[in-house]
Amino acid sequence: MNRPYQLKLPPGAVTSLLLRLEPRSATPLHEQIFEGVRLRILRGELASGWRLPSSRQLAAELDVARSTVLQALDALAAEGYIVTRAGASTRVAPELPIAPEDRPRSHASRMSRGPRLSHSARARKPIPVGAPRLGTAPRAFRPGVPALDLFPAALWGRTVTRVHARASTGLLDGGDPLGHAPLREAIATHVSSSRGVRCSAEQVFVTTGTQQAFDEILRISLDPGDAVWVEDPGYPGVRRAVLAAGGFPAPVPVDSEGLDVSEGIARARHARVVMVAPSHQYPLGATLSLVRRMALLKWAERTRSVIIEDDYDSEFRHRGRPLTALQGLDEAGCVVYVGTFSKSMFPGLRLGFFVAPPTLVDAFASTRAAFPAPASALEQAALAVFIEEGHFARHLRRMRVAYWERGEALLEALRADCAGALTPRDCDTGMQLTASLAAPLSDVSVRDEAARRGVEVAALSEYAFSRRREAGLVFGFGCVRPEALREGTRTLARALEAAQGRGGGIE
Amino acid sequence: MNRPYQLKLPPGAVTSLLLRLEPRSATPLHEQIFEGVRLRILRGELASGWRLPSSRQLAAELDVARSTVLQALDALAAEGYIVTRAGASTRVAPELPIAPEDRPRSHASRMSRGPRLSHSARARKPIPVGAPRLGTAPRAFRPGVPALDLFPAALWGRTVTRVHARASTGLLDGGDPLGHAPLREAIATHVSSSRGVRCSAEQVFVTTGTQQAFDEILRISLDPGDAVWVEDPGYPGVRRAVLAAGGFPAPVPVDSEGLDVSEGIARARHARVVMVAPSHQYPLGATLSLVRRMALLKWAERTRSVIIEDDYDSEFRHRGRPLTALQGLDEAGCVVYVGTFSKSMFPGLRLGFFVAPPTLVDAFASTRAAFPAPASALEQAALAVFIEEGHFARHLRRMRVAYWERGEALLEALRADCAGALTPRDCDTGMQLTASLAAPLSDVSVRDEAARRGVEVAALSEYAFSRRREAGLVFGFGCVRPEALREGTRTLARALEAAQGRGGGIE
Repeated sequence: MNRPYQLKLPPGAVTSLLLRLEPRSATPLHEQIFEGVRLRILRGELASGWRLPSSRQLAAELDVARSTVLQALDALAAEGYIVTRAGASTRVAPELPIAPEDRPRSHASRMSRGPRLSHSARARKPIPVGAPRLGTAPRAFRPGVPALDLFPAALWGRTVTRVHARASTGLLDGGDPLGHAPLREAIATHVSSSRGVRCSAEQVFVTTGTQQAFDEILRISLDPGDAVWVEDPGYPGVRRAVLAAGGFPAPVPVDSEGLDVSEGIARARHARVVMVAPSHQYPLGATLSLVRRMALLKWAERTRSVIIEDDYDSEFRHRGRPLTALQGLDEAGCVVYVGTFSKSMFPGLRLGFFVAPPTLVDAFASTRAAFPAPASALEQAALAVFIEEGHFARHLRRMRVAYWERGEALLEALRADCAGALTPRDCDTGMQLTASLAAPLSDVSVRDEAARRGVEVAALSEYAFSRRREAGLVFGFGCVRPEALREGTRTLARALEAAQGRGGGIE
Repeated sequence: MNRPYQLKLPPGAVTSLLLRLEPRSATPLHEQIFEGVRLRILRGELASGWRLPSSRQLAAELDVARSTVLQALDALAAEGYIVTRAGASTRVAPELPIAPEDRPRSHASRMSRGPRLSHSARARKPIPVGAPRLGTAPRAFRPGVPALDLFPAALWGRTVTRVHARASTGLLDGGDPLGHAPLREAIATHVSSSRGVRCSAEQVFVTTGTQQAFDEILRISLDPGDAVWVEDPGYPGVRRAVLAAGGFPAPVPVDSEGLDVSEGIARARHARVVMVAPSHQYPLGATLSLVRRMALLKWAERTRSVIIEDDYDSEFRHRGRPLTALQGLDEAGCVVYVGTFSKSMFPGLRLGFFVAPPTLVDAFASTRAAFPAPASALEQAALAVFIEEGHFARHLRRMRVAYWERGEALLEALRADCAGALTPRDCDTGMQLTASLAAPLSDVSVRDEAARRGVEVAALSEYAFSRRREAGLVFGFGCVRPEALREGTRTLARALEAAQGRGGGIE
């Protein structure tokens, strides 16, 4: 409708609706009439109480069938824009609260204000997440992406197909709010045998991943403003989850024995929750020592705090026996164990779980009551089958070897290409590796320089909370085939040189 | 290990580990040794610093290969329970904080305390949810369950299989945190054409369902304690979401024109959020009148509040044109439109969405940044295909007719079996019907009486917030085949008689 509206209309009785119809449009004619009249009423151009032309007049004016006009008028009446009464004329509804002063302000100026946000939403500063994502497909050296090239996608597809083919209406209906019962059984068996977690299926709650688990656990443990120990440096998703749940993240330093528990007690003794990755700290890779594990459990029992154990990547210990979970040492029911299938299967699956201590099972169950589990019922059922039939354990074994190979290949490539510039740390678990910068360079500028050349690495300093920031680079090698590593490290070497040449030192 | 432990051990040097191995167990022998020693250390029976027998002595004592013992000792050393040094004897780790006073308290008594819960978790009273669930399969007259018997499960299964067969690694990786782009496009097109929602795909955020959408929207809009208008009576999930987000639910009465906006302003003018189901209020079925829609929008614009439009069931208007969404009238960017595929597809799918106004897109995007969308990437992709290929629209059309038929059949069955006892309200949309009780009976006792006889109905009074509670029954007819309805209404008639006979009056 390009023709400008004629704004002055005869008061009380409208002789023409001044609509222009598009006979060739995909929108049916009656919809066009409906929408045209509706807009004119909302803009105040057809005012409350005004009389409209008869349907016969309108049909003649618009050159359409009378039934088309009646259809439009019926819809307008049904939504309350106009009032039709048998034997009487049709009028714009009398009580519509459209005053002339509503009109002058433009759409743009009204939109620009918008609703107020909560304090936390307004205060939210972007938390850096390490590596910039230079595209959608996984690439060197994006952290956190598993070896998707090795995932048995066809086998998984067949499992999903089979489950769909025999899906009951109970399964379509979503089933148990806590999670699909056979999946909870399969998870309980898996974490008991492979991670030393002591639990029964009743303690297992299915989630859509680690962030949802963190959120759910924090929300039953925290009051607004309560302190939460977070590892410094640590996984940015942890801080984000604490802030979103209204908690106050209290940074606790990490050293070669993992989280410094006595520092934590000294700095934030009234914390209600501790978030810790005892098996394999991110991004430094340390394992929490037994002495600290026991000190942490003792403190949590005494203060009745919750420990959230993020057992991230621990299934991928390259060689030897994986360390058992902190949860297995917990006698007082303080530890909630969090696991995910994002790495052991694939991130797009969005399935994870937590294991609640018996002390907290009722509290979690009551927050979930009456709603379906957050995760897809059919995919939960398929994953249960995949685990029960042994495909999952086989895949894990293959991945462990692949990550060993890829980790070793990366170390070799770094030795060959970046020997003087980077000192890698030990890497015996998972799909990430951290290396210190030899020269006093800003890791952020190295990262940005690498990104300009198409290589993703994360800056270690951005995982830090405190001022004392170590400069280094975090590499993900999960998604990179060994033969493709060299290209990445060569590019990185050039980026390191360029950063040094530019004097990209620490600001 | 049934043999009681011998607690007095020679201090400083242990001559025997007193372990009993089970050669026929599925647990390997080295694991049994590891676990046995570990437990004895944790119980304080093998104290810090004590010297263990040599691996040769242990192998002889336990009658196993020395390599088996070494494997167990390596694992114990790796986790920090023991200290081995070349040429020196093996000792229990010196600094373990296990004091004798840790021991006496029993596991049960320690567990019984457990961690503290947040105030909101402790204060959480079970919110009644209407119909008791008498089993897992859908049955008469459970509200909220769609016609799963009519869902084209085989077609959906084939779509899922196809998407899995050609899944890229990008899809396995989870893709866009806001949702799978083709699904967001398909949703934007669907809600624009069928619901009169004005949006582009950039405004669409994929969720795992209505509750997650409510939570996400409330958390960027509310500070702790902020008031939120909720419909009274209304959907219990709304109240639950407000409480979980730290808000204060302010009940606003509902009449035949829907939410009473002027009452809301009078009672809670400082509310930050309004939660409303304008198209089809639950459980009363009213449609929010145009006059009230415009008053609500005006108030929200002036106070910069957020309106959360729950457009629940509106796709299932039995006959005629569905009413357009409130969102389509919003010129100031206050309305967040919430939709779900739980009813239009099936509840176990866990896919839904919200449409943010342009004013709030950035705020929502920043809460999601850096994490995958909460919902399964492959199922999102499959749903996009299902919509694009027209299967979804065809299914919706069939469902509309089915719900019309089932609703009419229920009305007829109620007239035949419960005419004197129940007065059904109009029902022109969706899969639920509400009926008032003619006699002054407690609807809760009627519901319980029906449940004892195997029929699920919900008590209308339990959806109410205020003291002024109307007695009635809420029927779901979505999942009940027309021919199966009569059995349900006959049983219900007997339950009504029994409740009346017992004098199950209003307490």
